[in-house]
Amino acid sequence: MGALDDAHYNAVLENGVKLGRCEFEQEPETVAIEDAVKVLLRGLGEDINREGIRKTPLRVAKALREGTRGYKQNVKDIVQGALFPESGLETGVGHAGGAGGLVLVRDLDLFSYCESCLLPFQVKCHVGYIPSGQRVVGLSKLSRVADIFTKRLQDPQRLADDICSGLQNGINPTGVAVVLHCSHIHFPDSHSTFLPTHKRWVNVIVNSGSGSFRKPESTNWVDFFGLLRRPNITLHNIRSKTNNKDSWCPSRANTGPGVSSMDTAVTSIIRSLGQDPCRKELAGTPTRFVKWLMNFKESKLEMKLNGPGLGLGLGLSPLNTAGQVNLKIRSEVNLSLWSLCEHHLLPFYGSVHIGYISSEEASPVLKSLLQSIVHSHGFKLQVQERLTRQIAETVSRVLGGDVIVVVEANHTCMISRGIEKFGSNTGTIAVLGRFSNDPDARAEFLEMIPESS
Amino acid sequence: MGALDDAHYNAVLENGVKLGRCEFEQEPETVAIEDAVKVLLRGLGEDINREGIRKTPLRVAKALREGTRGYKQNVKDIVQGALFPESGLETGVGHAGGAGGLVLVRDLDLFSYCESCLLPFQVKCHVGYIPSGQRVVGLSKLSRVADIFTKRLQDPQRLADDICSGLQNGINPTGVAVVLHCSHIHFPDSHSTFLPTHKRWVNVIVNSGSGSFRKPESTNWVDFFGLLRRPNITLHNIRSKTNNKDSWCPSRANTGPGVSSMDTAVTSIIRSLGQDPCRKELAGTPTRFVKWLMNFKESKLEMKLNGPGLGLGLGLSPLNTAGQVNLKIRSEVNLSLWSLCEHHLLPFYGSVHIGYISSEEASPVLKSLLQSIVHSHGFKLQVQERLTRQIAETVSRVLGGDVIVVVEANHTCMISRGIEKFGSNTGTIAVLGRFSNDPDARAEFLEMIPESS
Repeated sequence: MGALDDAHYNAVLENGVKLGRCEFEQEPETVAIEDAVKVLLRGLGEDINREGIRKTPLRVAKALREGTRGYKQNVKDIVQGALFPESGLETGVGHAGGAGGLVLVRDLDLFSYCESCLLPFQVKCHVGYIPSGQRVVGLSKLSRVADIFTKRLQDPQRLADDICSGLQNGINPTGVAVVLHCSHIHFPDSHSTFLPTHKRWVNVIVNSGSGSFRKPESTNWVDFFGLLRRPNITLHNIRSKTNNKDSWCPSRANTGPGVSSMDTAVTSIIRSLGQDPCRKELAGTPTRFVKWLMNFKESKLEMKLNGPGLGLGLGLSPLNTAGQVNLKIRSEVNLSLWSLCEHHLLPFYGSVHIGYISSEEASPVLKSLLQSIVHSHGFKLQVQERLTRQIAETVSRVLGGDVIVVVEANHTCMISRGIEKFGSNTGTIAVLGRFSNDPDARAEFLEMIPESS
Repeated sequence: MGALDDAHYNAVLENGVKLGRCEFEQEPETVAIEDAVKVLLRGLGEDINREGIRKTPLRVAKALREGTRGYKQNVKDIVQGALFPESGLETGVGHAGGAGGLVLVRDLDLFSYCESCLLPFQVKCHVGYIPSGQRVVGLSKLSRVADIFTKRLQDPQRLADDICSGLQNGINPTGVAVVLHCSHIHFPDSHSTFLPTHKRWVNVIVNSGSGSFRKPESTNWVDFFGLLRRPNITLHNIRSKTNNKDSWCPSRANTGPGVSSMDTAVTSIIRSLGQDPCRKELAGTPTRFVKWLMNFKESKLEMKLNGPGLGLGLGLSPLNTAGQVNLKIRSEVNLSLWSLCEHHLLPFYGSVHIGYISSEEASPVLKSLLQSIVHSHGFKLQVQERLTRQIAETVSRVLGGDVIVVVEANHTCMISRGIEKFGSNTGTIAVLGRFSNDPDARAEFLEMIPESS
């Protein structure tokens, strides 16, 4: 629907009526967010006029305003006209609605914004209801209503409760049940990034029920989970509401004072989204966001790479000098990658695979050295193409000229903005030396990358 | 982006400016499609004023116009402003672009409309390019450009070629490679619906290359498939372009004369979408669409159920009469379901699981009888909730009062319209007799449904 309306907008604009997107870009809220993002970029040591990030403030402002559009939407507008009469749905026919019972839509992929740190989090939403009043609601409306509440600054439990009460009030059924499986990226800071125990995601499963699902012990919940049939989601691994007082957000662990001008900028962003920065849950958000962002300050990790302890591998001489025999392709796969997309200030993450050529007798290069190189180029504002090239160039300086680098990454900006391509990911290759002109060498290396990564 | 523009639209409307959605609904093309859909509904024997389908003509018209919006979009609008300078992308650095080589975005979920039968088909899109001119394009634009060409009446090979040339001309890189895995639903007609050999999907993999990917034997393709790493997609299982003269569309097999007033209505729809109904590929489309649609004419299969040969099970007396002992829950799971959503005239399909109670000594009910009941209620305009209830009621008449029915279905309308929830599906339950008031019986049955279905 949206895109067609876009087309109309453009038609309207062509007719000389100055409405729509152009006006939106000039709205004071958008401009205020842009100004705040410029403060953040300067705080990261960036030149805000650099071509790659020149439009980043506008992109971030649009993404945030679109990502919180739910504050301006309401359930009645969506469900009205989508309630259809169905006979045989009297509640009197029997328990569970009798014939015409529970309706469950599973596996809706959505995303929301964490109120504790402003990062998007992924939501796998399962929503059910038991019709009453001889009316059923169009299935897509369950997703659209859920989307209203995901497009706000949220916490998983409140999100579940909002969707539940929104549907209960909007369609007035016998009961509504909502189960959300939420995943929040757990970005390491520059200190914990080398710990192998670092987990990439914080997961939490929450539920909310109203009407006949209000009591957790209702047999309707047994039906719900029986019909849901997701072995990893049961009544027993749902987070208890009484334990919900601690936020799930990994950034909550960050303490310490913030950087004042950047903090003020984030406070201004929250206000421009129509939210009160003094609301209890948002009080520490600016500090947390800035602390997280400062992990990507240019050169923070570069020093580490040149510092003591990691120079170990640097003493290796180039291996592919003339006259050497028994050369073989070696690989180090599944190196962990974290980075920040400079176009949207959103994380991307994945795996890096590095191939190089050395003599059969040489000892393999230390994995920790290659991991350091990946992190040193990851922890800054990046684009995947440049990152791939920079890793290749650095590895080439250390290990000699024959290098191939493959980066496979998931981009949060491909999920949490208009195109919402949840399953997609991006692969890039950089090749130097022999890998540039030997397709067989490239193919041999690509086959070394394990299936599952 | 769309939804925020929606909000603006509403604001505009509230200010008294009559633009946007209301106008769209009154556009002559939309009205013409609505009129044509009314002809189709009448041809199916439906009362077009029935509340459930009263708005179906408008919903179908909006879906079709939105689903073909790509005719009004162009690549330059999307990629301009999203080309970013990146040094180190000179083609001279080496084969495959040297450092800064192939960029591949995998697993973009899209859908398009089959020009042969007007049904949507699913597209898993993999698109790659080798940057040149020291410029890379924003990753999301690869998806947005592909979307322009999917939102048209298409054939897989033309779609791949369109995406490829659109990107080649739009961003002017060293080369573009597109691989599409397309899946077209293969709806059985009322004759073939009982054949166990019927396959649900017609799958085809196609590719298209330009620039350095133009020649199929280019080593760039080896890199592409090496980086793609999808074991089911190789150079060898891609459909050869020379074999592409036969359409992949399963409706192509349908021959015979059409129903004239309905055919004319579909021709009018095609014209309202801005397409020439005389274009070679569209010439037989109205007849094919109508033939497919007529499978869902009310009562077509009902007669079969009451006819000879299927009354076999009807002689069974109700089993749960008082005084009987050793009753057990029996189940028949994974019955095949096909139906047509009456709100959107789009297919939904999946599995039906039926539970009932009989004495341990009784022979199990013939699976073919239950499958007939499912098909008799499936092959008409339906909503899943009503379908579930009707199956339960019919089974109850045949097997006695204690019946539970679970329907699990994928709805094409959840994919091929605005919300595009590719992975979601819907479960519904109807319970009668003992299953209404015995949660343990319901739970026991739900556990009989196999994981994988």
